[in-house]
Amino acid sequence: MPYELYYWDGIQGRGEFVRLALEDAGAKYIDKCRSSTGTQTMMEFLKGSHGHDQMPFAPPFLKDGELVISHVANILLYLGPRLGLLPDDEKNHLIANGLQLTITDFVAEVHDAHHPISTGDYYEDQKTEAKARSAAFIRDRIPKFLGYFERILSTNSTGDGFVIGNGLTYVDLSLFQVLEGLNYAFPKAMKAVEDDYPRLALLRDRVSKRPGIAAYLKSERRLPFSESGIFRHYPELDLNS
Amino acid sequence: MPYELYYWDGIQGRGEFVRLALEDAGAKYIDKCRSSTGTQTMMEFLKGSHGHDQMPFAPPFLKDGELVISHVANILLYLGPRLGLLPDDEKNHLIANGLQLTITDFVAEVHDAHHPISTGDYYEDQKTEAKARSAAFIRDRIPKFLGYFERILSTNSTGDGFVIGNGLTYVDLSLFQVLEGLNYAFPKAMKAVEDDYPRLALLRDRVSKRPGIAAYLKSERRLPFSESGIFRHYPELDLNS
Repeated sequence: MPYELYYWDGIQGRGEFVRLALEDAGAKYIDKCRSSTGTQTMMEFLKGSHGHDQMPFAPPFLKDGELVISHVANILLYLGPRLGLLPDDEKNHLIANGLQLTITDFVAEVHDAHHPISTGDYYEDQKTEAKARSAAFIRDRIPKFLGYFERILSTNSTGDGFVIGNGLTYVDLSLFQVLEGLNYAFPKAMKAVEDDYPRLALLRDRVSKRPGIAAYLKSERRLPFSESGIFRHYPELDLNS
Repeated sequence: MPYELYYWDGIQGRGEFVRLALEDAGAKYIDKCRSSTGTQTMMEFLKGSHGHDQMPFAPPFLKDGELVISHVANILLYLGPRLGLLPDDEKNHLIANGLQLTITDFVAEVHDAHHPISTGDYYEDQKTEAKARSAAFIRDRIPKFLGYFERILSTNSTGDGFVIGNGLTYVDLSLFQVLEGLNYAFPKAMKAVEDDYPRLALLRDRVSKRPGIAAYLKSERRLPFSESGIFRHYPELDLNS
């Protein structure tokens, strides 16, 4: 039975971190909300129509048989060993999950760079505050997070170019997505620091060439980044704008 | 060997979610940064002195022998079955982790209510923006998150008053902490909705009376809430201020 992925249609969003794992592994899955009735089905889960154990707070969630699994990091921790994207031992699970949760926090900050006051309001209504938050994000947060992952890559003595051990994990795929997104959203800021993170640049390039990922990126299933997603390109929020 | 908890000294902060689990279970642990050299030891881990596998992005982290585990939800998923605070089967792990990650997101929003622009700047430098974000938080986000957990409690057919199954899990303890914190930070806003979440109110009361928790709350180990923590009481950010 194929996995069922539930996520808002029309954007990459947080669902993309799950898609990249499924696509890299060549797993069978249905992107439910890209069918005509999928969004309605998703809303039924969110409303609680399927009861306590199948009532996520928000998308994305993954359905595998009777299991309904919510939150990106939780979904990836479940899929990782099944898709060959995480060694199946406790220590590596703990390390991968800690790193993935750091990415989760980073992604939330990316979102809040354009929505610092209220998720429920338009960007245009919080533009001044978004400019201030984005400046701090570019100045303080990008170096803090990317610097950390660069150090993680450089101190991994067991594998050259991987975040954990000597093979690819879902954390590498998620880092690829973060780098793609940052380069889309903040091209000038990222250009200014492009020499600071050589191992991350190599990882990004290498992941893009993996057969499953390369095929996916060329397909219609890979939606473009846009100003409805998490990584948004508003030129006025970029460096020196 | 006792668990070693690493977290900033002087505040409850995110470390408190881990402390409540350890205290409820009566587990042996050392709150490392409350000793004279603990913070220095913690900084060594953060700097990467102990290598790739023991280099968290940020506190809290837990050390158990050679394992270094970072992020609250990750730590609790590890401790849960060991402390009798989570049934030891995959389905319950996935549900508990999904709920705990929803709490994680909520706690990050609580923090950003007083720091909407930059974590690196003082509250006083972003007071106007904090007022706007707190208004949206009180109006939209408190009902969304608390309403969700109230529904989770009301739809749990297997146990009366617990989030999962028919016994206490670490998610119940974390919800208790969120409710305590919100009542400290936003007393007027919480007073206005006190009748809306009867099951959460009961959970809060019940958790406070558990022997391990009651003893802990009376002890010197339980630091008071303060304006250095995540849940801060700034009267001007509360309802109708």
